[in-house]
Amino acid sequence: MNQQTCSEECPIKKVADILDGKWTTLIIRDLLSGKKRYHELQQSLAGISAKVLSDRLKKLETSGIITRTVFDTVPPSTEYQLSEQGQGLAPVFVAMAEYGQSM
Amino acid sequence: MNQQTCSEECPIKKVADILDGKWTTLIIRDLLSGKKRYHELQQSLAGISAKVLSDRLKKLETSGIITRTVFDTVPPSTEYQLSEQGQGLAPVFVAMAEYGQSM
Repeated sequence: MNQQTCSEECPIKKVADILDGKWTTLIIRDLLSGKKRYHELQQSLAGISAKVLSDRLKKLETSGIITRTVFDTVPPSTEYQLSEQGQGLAPVFVAMAEYGQSM
Repeated sequence: MNQQTCSEECPIKKVADILDGKWTTLIIRDLLSGKKRYHELQQSLAGISAKVLSDRLKKLETSGIITRTVFDTVPPSTEYQLSEQGQGLAPVFVAMAEYGQSM
């Protein structure tokens, strides 16, 4: 907590880079309760555009927080879930929920 | 954690709205170790523009997370500190730091 310089090694900066933007935070929140199809996320995240949702999911996949499975259905459907690394964020969200409840 | 709809009342959404964007997260991180002058924040947050820093500080002040004190010096200097509500975010940052260290 006494980190004064915004170095690349700052552990909070690493997490801030992952959670950058409220939609990313809300996608992870949704996936903490289990895997979700694309349309389930879209439904849960009222107001998110398809472009932003796809962009955030791609970013989370690239950073290893979520994994994506494509099902060979017609039309094809895609399922997202937290990776082991993504599951590790749970304590951050528990702390957020506790704080948010106290507001 | 089982919240399925992105309602305004969701406690995680409330916190996501506050921490929206990585710079906001890093400003709060810096203020958790004590009050800071504007130029100290600018120095710590390498790469932030004056416009973005001012914008984020204004937003945090509006949402009651930080307070601002202006000193009648020449030139005037401004000091920022976490409000009691802002201090309440500490457990979120502790969880972030623990996660970031494990990455």
